[in-house]
Amino acid sequence: MKLASLKSGRDGKLVVVSRDLTRAVDAGFIASTLQSALDDWAKTAPALDALSQQLNAGECAGTFDFDPKACAAPLPRAYHWADGSAYVTHVELVRKARGADLPESFWSDPLVYMGASDAFIGPRDDIPVQSEDWGIDFEAEVVVITDDVPAGISSEQARDHIMLIGLVNDVSLRNLIPGELGKQFGFYQSKPWTSFSPVLATPDELGDAWDGARLHLPLRASLNGKLIGSPNAGVDMTFDFPTLIAHCAKSRSLMAGTVIGSGTVSNVGSADGSCCLAEVRCLETIRDGEPKTPFMSFGDRVEIEMRDSDGSPLFGAIDQVVTRYYPPGSQAQ
Amino acid sequence: MKLASLKSGRDGKLVVVSRDLTRAVDAGFIASTLQSALDDWAKTAPALDALSQQLNAGECAGTFDFDPKACAAPLPRAYHWADGSAYVTHVELVRKARGADLPESFWSDPLVYMGASDAFIGPRDDIPVQSEDWGIDFEAEVVVITDDVPAGISSEQARDHIMLIGLVNDVSLRNLIPGELGKQFGFYQSKPWTSFSPVLATPDELGDAWDGARLHLPLRASLNGKLIGSPNAGVDMTFDFPTLIAHCAKSRSLMAGTVIGSGTVSNVGSADGSCCLAEVRCLETIRDGEPKTPFMSFGDRVEIEMRDSDGSPLFGAIDQVVTRYYPPGSQAQ
Repeated sequence: MKLASLKSGRDGKLVVVSRDLTRAVDAGFIASTLQSALDDWAKTAPALDALSQQLNAGECAGTFDFDPKACAAPLPRAYHWADGSAYVTHVELVRKARGADLPESFWSDPLVYMGASDAFIGPRDDIPVQSEDWGIDFEAEVVVITDDVPAGISSEQARDHIMLIGLVNDVSLRNLIPGELGKQFGFYQSKPWTSFSPVLATPDELGDAWDGARLHLPLRASLNGKLIGSPNAGVDMTFDFPTLIAHCAKSRSLMAGTVIGSGTVSNVGSADGSCCLAEVRCLETIRDGEPKTPFMSFGDRVEIEMRDSDGSPLFGAIDQVVTRYYPPGSQAQ
Repeated sequence: MKLASLKSGRDGKLVVVSRDLTRAVDAGFIASTLQSALDDWAKTAPALDALSQQLNAGECAGTFDFDPKACAAPLPRAYHWADGSAYVTHVELVRKARGADLPESFWSDPLVYMGASDAFIGPRDDIPVQSEDWGIDFEAEVVVITDDVPAGISSEQARDHIMLIGLVNDVSLRNLIPGELGKQFGFYQSKPWTSFSPVLATPDELGDAWDGARLHLPLRASLNGKLIGSPNAGVDMTFDFPTLIAHCAKSRSLMAGTVIGSGTVSNVGSADGSCCLAEVRCLETIRDGEPKTPFMSFGDRVEIEMRDSDGSPLFGAIDQVVTRYYPPGSQAQ
């Protein structure tokens, strides 16, 4: 099944969406919000799945056109957002561009940071940023949503805790990153908003493309209508999702509704392009000595989507414009 | 007013607690949970305050004995937990013990990391940890809870966004920290659980001890009944709470119910002792060349509390025992 949250209050309104993303039906009689569904997943998932089957069979009353513009993030706010950097080739490239070696341990010990789970935005929402000087970038990623995960489980056990899969744009402020990395306390101001695909899908919707640990399809990222990259998310993912989940749960349990991200999808050699501008700039720096692609400006549009082998959209598109934000009391307000 | 959440489901059951922490009354007719109260604070706060006044005047029906053992964390799960390291003297000491300089910028640019807001535990809950080798420590801190904070506000504006104040034990696994700091992505496995005081209080409950930005009272931390420290939380706090809030909100808004922590309370010279064992060990290292105080063992008990100038407890005591945790499928299960 595919699930979305229409904008409504702080937690949205749960709907089931048809496989082809054209029709939807209110799921409020099963669970009013996606978080409440995940809080009681063993009970709600079968009911949601039955509704999904009716919807896809055209046997459902009260359906309506599905409009991604009406969507909040599927979890409009969450209790835990852990973002990995699972494509180590990306990290290696970034370091190479600034002349730094990659510690050997980065190939065996996952990099994960805690993200802002109270700053999720919808697939068609603007991205409000105060200053272009901050180095506005997108990062196209795959995410999974877990149920309750006990502390100390193995990667093998973690496989059973992946309930939903989707895409995000992990908005990054590149020029704020070096200072924050230098302080060693992780990203904070440099990772403001995270945008989600219109729908999340259960693993069974993805067929052979999902092997229980990785999603084997190209992830497409475009800027102002021009494809920046379409690397395959199943290739060169050093740490698969079960490994990331087990890493995150090493010393404490994870709450149902935890969002675990892959980090920027990246393939060795970047033959199919990149899923963020930082990587494009690193490749330019390595090749030409300096980057020539600028970061995003106000008015720039980023699109992120994934299609199945038939070309059908799986999760719907993230499609957003960067806008200038004026803080309270500033001149433009 | 003083608010607590009795254990019930995932989000607890909101109660108003008397000033002397002896009596409580169900606040469910105003808001069923503290998060739902914070989601609509302008409306719920006056009603909760009226109930608090009735309770303190002994004019309230349906009151019952307040039992801290029945408490979850006041927010049993939250959308955002940002923990500062606002007492820079503590950071300086830790660095001095390992022979590292403190960057000058640490005195002007706040250190903040994103904590695990889905791993909050109650004031009398056990602290489950798998291995003593991880270096189990407590950190006694002051926290504030915000309402919705717009992005880009000033420190001065941030003063109006502090709704509630309380204490936490930021459980830390010291031996996992060096590896995580080395990766620069911030704390993750090394910061598993955060325990909260039984109640949170509104600023007006704290009288002159709260100046709108800092809480001027000693914070007492004890291990197995022996006082480890009682530094004054209002002294040597380099970055006050409004400054921390403005730092956190620089590039995005903060959701109502955001928890902002002070970091380990610490005074220059540590004359009144320390609020974590790491600081005790650093002082020993600087004095004797090596630490002699061990980290916590299974069975150790940590108590954290703050009393007003009359000696009355303000938030109730955090009082917890470290227990051994066995992951699923391990021998002891």
